[in-house]
Amino acid sequence: MALIVQKYGGSSVGSVDKIKRIAEKIKGYRDRGDQVVVVVSAMGGETDRLTELAGELSGRPVPREMDVLLSTGEQVTIALLSMALSHIGVKARSYTGWQVPIVSDGHHSKARIEKIDEDNLRATIDDGAVAVVAGFQGITGDGSISTLGRGGSDTTAVALAAALKADECQIYTDVDGVYTTDPRVVSGARRLDKITFEEMLEMASLGSKVLQIRAVEFAGKYGVPLRVLSTFEEGPGTLITLEEYVEEPIISGIAFTKDESQLTVLGVPDRPGIAYSLLGPIGENNIEVDMILQNVSGDSSSDYTLTDFTFTVHKRDYETAKELLEKAAPGVGAREVTGTPDVCKVSLVGVGMRSHANVAARMFKALADENINIRMISTTEIKISIVVENKYLELAVRALHDEFELDEEPKRVESELTPAADQ
Amino acid sequence: MALIVQKYGGSSVGSVDKIKRIAEKIKGYRDRGDQVVVVVSAMGGETDRLTELAGELSGRPVPREMDVLLSTGEQVTIALLSMALSHIGVKARSYTGWQVPIVSDGHHSKARIEKIDEDNLRATIDDGAVAVVAGFQGITGDGSISTLGRGGSDTTAVALAAALKADECQIYTDVDGVYTTDPRVVSGARRLDKITFEEMLEMASLGSKVLQIRAVEFAGKYGVPLRVLSTFEEGPGTLITLEEYVEEPIISGIAFTKDESQLTVLGVPDRPGIAYSLLGPIGENNIEVDMILQNVSGDSSSDYTLTDFTFTVHKRDYETAKELLEKAAPGVGAREVTGTPDVCKVSLVGVGMRSHANVAARMFKALADENINIRMISTTEIKISIVVENKYLELAVRALHDEFELDEEPKRVESELTPAADQ
Repeated sequence: MALIVQKYGGSSVGSVDKIKRIAEKIKGYRDRGDQVVVVVSAMGGETDRLTELAGELSGRPVPREMDVLLSTGEQVTIALLSMALSHIGVKARSYTGWQVPIVSDGHHSKARIEKIDEDNLRATIDDGAVAVVAGFQGITGDGSISTLGRGGSDTTAVALAAALKADECQIYTDVDGVYTTDPRVVSGARRLDKITFEEMLEMASLGSKVLQIRAVEFAGKYGVPLRVLSTFEEGPGTLITLEEYVEEPIISGIAFTKDESQLTVLGVPDRPGIAYSLLGPIGENNIEVDMILQNVSGDSSSDYTLTDFTFTVHKRDYETAKELLEKAAPGVGAREVTGTPDVCKVSLVGVGMRSHANVAARMFKALADENINIRMISTTEIKISIVVENKYLELAVRALHDEFELDEEPKRVESELTPAADQ
Repeated sequence: MALIVQKYGGSSVGSVDKIKRIAEKIKGYRDRGDQVVVVVSAMGGETDRLTELAGELSGRPVPREMDVLLSTGEQVTIALLSMALSHIGVKARSYTGWQVPIVSDGHHSKARIEKIDEDNLRATIDDGAVAVVAGFQGITGDGSISTLGRGGSDTTAVALAAALKADECQIYTDVDGVYTTDPRVVSGARRLDKITFEEMLEMASLGSKVLQIRAVEFAGKYGVPLRVLSTFEEGPGTLITLEEYVEEPIISGIAFTKDESQLTVLGVPDRPGIAYSLLGPIGENNIEVDMILQNVSGDSSSDYTLTDFTFTVHKRDYETAKELLEKAAPGVGAREVTGTPDVCKVSLVGVGMRSHANVAARMFKALADENINIRMISTTEIKISIVVENKYLELAVRALHDEFELDEEPKRVESELTPAADQ
């Protein structure tokens, strides 16, 4: 008997039939004696439908009211799933965000959870019922409905698991776990039985969109064991854990992001405040900047040391970002603004690379062997990211998957184990 | 400057365009300096959509969860209308039932309002904003979402008007007021400028379904001036008021109900408990009984005085009711059960008939002149109802409309004014 928090996303609850199947699945856990708290998203398509209605009324709908609108999506699902459970003899009680309550800050549409009072949920599960909670929503201090931002149901599940000290938080999705890379790109991609939170964070933020990154951070912070698994297929999924492996692979996986653009400001006299002068206007226009590199330029024909700035933005923001840079460039004495609209980012992720110095070298050699030109390199302790032209994406991912033998089960290797808690 | 509570029903908010038009209408009141609280229903069709989803899951959905489900309908509307108002520069703030809060009892799907705390709404309108409130819903003492039953948005509006001591409660509908009878039946039907609560109650309960009867009762009880008017046409509508008219017509209007059935139990020995023995099984089967008549039968050939019972039920319940009666009849020694499945009820309504004794006679003569056979007669102080065969419905309504000259503006007549409060 365990206390399990389960989360089912929009495609898992996309129809009445799917809701019935999930009810049966939950019944299986209850029959086994587990206590179950279920977090659900809006039915697939519902959030888009509501967003469209709002869009017809206003180009910039009031955020407070947008949250009132969108939060109905999950409310419909909790009611339907509770009915489905009752119908097959499983006691159930639905909870909206404010009924739990899940208290958030006042940032409508991207609120953060501040406090969860778990007493109501505890009473429900102790009473032998399944608590069915609306994901993605909370209540602000002044009694308004808030939403945690799209996809925030994962965060709700993890936060509830932490508050209830659950034995496991299960995130049910379309896929049966976390893979070494995208199986659509590399046919030999392999499901991982386990992955550390750190690795998962790097994988998630880099485009392997299995889990919301905030949910993984949250789970890591509160030590909630997190499992990603398939809604409609049997299988153990992937456990995301604080423990590092004894059988430690060097590399866990390869993440990638398409549709990036690269922008470079050349020959900037290196003075304090330069980075802010260039990136400030970008940020003010709500353009998200990903990788940022700065390095001293070869050109030293002026009184100042010259430097080059390079960074990446999403492709849709390329033109706007370029214009903003071209406006800002003269003010900082920059020589030129250049850019490439179509690049992608490929990242090797693995805690194992900490103790294996030659990973970068192996990576660059594998890419060179395929004649792939690397345009940017950025590294962290457990990740090496490179930017290449879009057309090389698949080739790069496959070459690296082969090089690090990710299609094979990891071999036992010697490594200095670093307890996650000390980091 | 006045404080006005307005209620817009499902067809008034049935599309984004209609919501925009309502927002403009509300802006007109704000520009004039009025304080406005708006109560809205779910967008037309939404409640049916949600009910269907629930129906696919369970034949008898859990009432608590049904309320969680259905209450999302109004929540969507309050968000959209608030956005629409903000978009045209009118400050607005939405309120779900629990946010007001509107506290109800725990009878899910047919809850009654127990208490309204008007402080939040008051703060919003004093702040110069429009308060947009979800109709039809409340919160129970234990924090569950409740609904007031379908169409309960009228009641929400009246209850808020009472709590806020509003100057007027305006119910916007498809029609531009209360008519002397259904204009589809009598082309000369005339819109009434005013009607008393008593008359409105008789009209509403008898089939002129402009307003929810509970809302009218509530408004009468708390002395809330109620006005029925059209959403998309200009006009003063009909004011429902405590005051009786100085220019008092004898008859205010003619209400009718189609699709009734008449059932008669003949020759019942008249002993205590007979009525219960016959009607008990009907009530236990949730069949609503409308008119009930009992009169001593001409047949006196037994030891007991014999009596006949006649009552009406909705046509859909005719067969069931007849079977139940046939089962119960032998137990009370009744001679026979007869019935007519297709009858209708036509009622003259008017406070003026109190002081005019010959109204019934004029009514019966007008019907006799058209060769309409009257099957049942039932009267109250301000109403005379008759039951006739369905085929005579239109003829009867037109004959009475002519007889009492309802197409003409009421003439000033002498009458003993009875203050409503004394009745």
